[in-house]
Amino acid sequence: MSLALQVRLQSNRERSSLALPVTQIVKLNGDKSSTMTSIRIGIVTVSDRASRGEYEDRGGPAILEYLSQVLTSPFEHLGRVIPDEQPLIEQTLRELCQTEQCCLVITTGGTGPALRDVTPEATEAVCQKMMPGFGELMRKVSLEKVPTAILSRQTAGICGSALIINLPGQPKAIQECLDAVFPAIPYCIDLLNGPFLTTLESRVKAFRPRK
Amino acid sequence: MSLALQVRLQSNRERSSLALPVTQIVKLNGDKSSTMTSIRIGIVTVSDRASRGEYEDRGGPAILEYLSQVLTSPFEHLGRVIPDEQPLIEQTLRELCQTEQCCLVITTGGTGPALRDVTPEATEAVCQKMMPGFGELMRKVSLEKVPTAILSRQTAGICGSALIINLPGQPKAIQECLDAVFPAIPYCIDLLNGPFLTTLESRVKAFRPRK
Amino acid sequence: MSLALQVRLQSNRERSSLALPVTQIVKLNGDKSSTMTSIRIGIVTVSDRASRGEYEDRGGPAILEYLSQVLTSPFEHLGRVIPDEQPLIEQTLRELCQTEQCCLVITTGGTGPALRDVTPEATEAVCQKMMPGFGELMRKVSLEKVPTAILSRQTAGICGSALIINLPGQPKAIQECLDAVFPAIPYCIDLLNGPFLTTLESRVKAFRPRK
Repeated sequence: MSLALQVRLQSNRERSSLALPVTQIVKLNGDKSSTMTSIRIGIVTVSDRASRGEYEDRGGPAILEYLSQVLTSPFEHLGRVIPDEQPLIEQTLRELCQTEQCCLVITTGGTGPALRDVTPEATEAVCQKMMPGFGELMRKVSLEKVPTAILSRQTAGICGSALIINLPGQPKAIQECLDAVFPAIPYCIDLLNGPFLTTLESRVKAFRPRK
Repeated sequence: MSLALQVRLQSNRERSSLALPVTQIVKLNGDKSSTMTSIRIGIVTVSDRASRGEYEDRGGPAILEYLSQVLTSPFEHLGRVIPDEQPLIEQTLRELCQTEQCCLVITTGGTGPALRDVTPEATEAVCQKMMPGFGELMRKVSLEKVPTAILSRQTAGICGSALIINLPGQPKAIQECLDAVFPAIPYCIDLLNGPFLTTLESRVKAFRPRK
Repeated sequence: MSLALQVRLQSNRERSSLALPVTQIVKLNGDKSSTMTSIRIGIVTVSDRASRGEYEDRGGPAILEYLSQVLTSPFEHLGRVIPDEQPLIEQTLRELCQTEQCCLVITTGGTGPALRDVTPEATEAVCQKMMPGFGELMRKVSLEKVPTAILSRQTAGICGSALIINLPGQPKAIQECLDAVFPAIPYCIDLLNGPFLTTLESRVKAFRPRK
């Protein structure tokens, strides 16, 4: 986990260009700039073809659109598009969690059984704790749609103070999986001493147990 | 797994002061003392605050009350309250499974994503076999109550001849989880050549497949 | 994973003597012999008693019968009956996946919590990737029948280009588990660049997502 090995891959920290819901703007109270930097979310597309430009990345934009619709907290996203190379995936995840201080990193792609699919292995390699409940629930909801959902090896875990979640590659499956697990994400980030995430309750109701 | 490293932590082997159901007393037939020592169950509360006395341990007593209500076999319980320190949790689990010859060790607490939550890691470190079905089922039943159930990393495994099961910290969640998995526990202990556990069938129906 | 360590155990490559459904014969179009060798499936019974001949192997034949009923592709089966010894299980799995070039290896037995049950550990040791969705789904369907289903530690994984799946020992449970996961198996083998498996759709509908 040497930080000396960390390499900045891309630096597209620009704010999402997608329109934010009105509720969010109301909440900002003019203190937009300082709040803006506090919630950083990494979005990592793992795909040989997308990284070579042979294929349009649809997974990353689908995740960003979901977050833009669901999160009422302002957030900054850090996007990466990388090939299915385990050392590079590990390096990217560590960079986003450690150097870039993301509280949440969501990957898309590379979770299947094929030779080049190594996203879960890379995730496990960088995490100190695994969160098996995420993969179990996401496979369960995907299984209601397609019997091949059991082929997804997607997992989740904690790397430092960040939650990493693997999602499948298809935009439709991305939304189904995020709908299933998102209600638990803000409280998970609270437990990691991260920023306080708020959601559009009509879309996703974040659950925080009373102490 | 050196036994030389085992240290006795607390020695509160006194019998539960909770009243036992009538069915149990009837079954004892006056041979109480010799039978009493045959079924030993460890109950480990993992909590920094409870171990420092800043917080009343509610998880350990909830497990003991459950066992006292459900088990019709007489049993002896060995209680421990320890901080969220992985080496100490591992040492306590090994002591209870090996030195103290418990057939079942139930932990409460330390299963979440926070930095100090390391009970599943300690459990995995001392077990020769993991039992993923316990965690899957317990998360499934908890998920019917709260969406944050996926944050529980609770697992189970076999350490020597003992079954170790992680439970969450909240008494309500403890009961839900035990209700879900308890029907399988007596047969599991049979397969480990442990003592024959009987349950109050109106409460929990232990299942033993016909050979 | 040294191939030098691989030892041929038994060489019963004879074709299943079970009658094949008519649909299969129709599909063969006289090109039976060349197609016959292309799909090779390993069936491994892991049982101390069965391997000593003290007990009739019922698991292996139950798997073969299932495959003969469900697969419309012609296939060759390679059967093994071995004791619950982890090194021998690992060696057998590697031999079937690597030397014998099976695209699918199905084990039966050795998935419980008892001291001698080590099939999941052997499977994990030879696989480069684990497929947690198989075990989760098989335990879920078995749990609808018996509460002790959570005691099965059955898993699945990828060894080279082969899918290995652990099943329980009981013929009834074998069928329930295969019914649950079989719709995803042909596509999994596609993703591993293996042969194209077809099924009797009235029995099991193989699912292949449109690209």
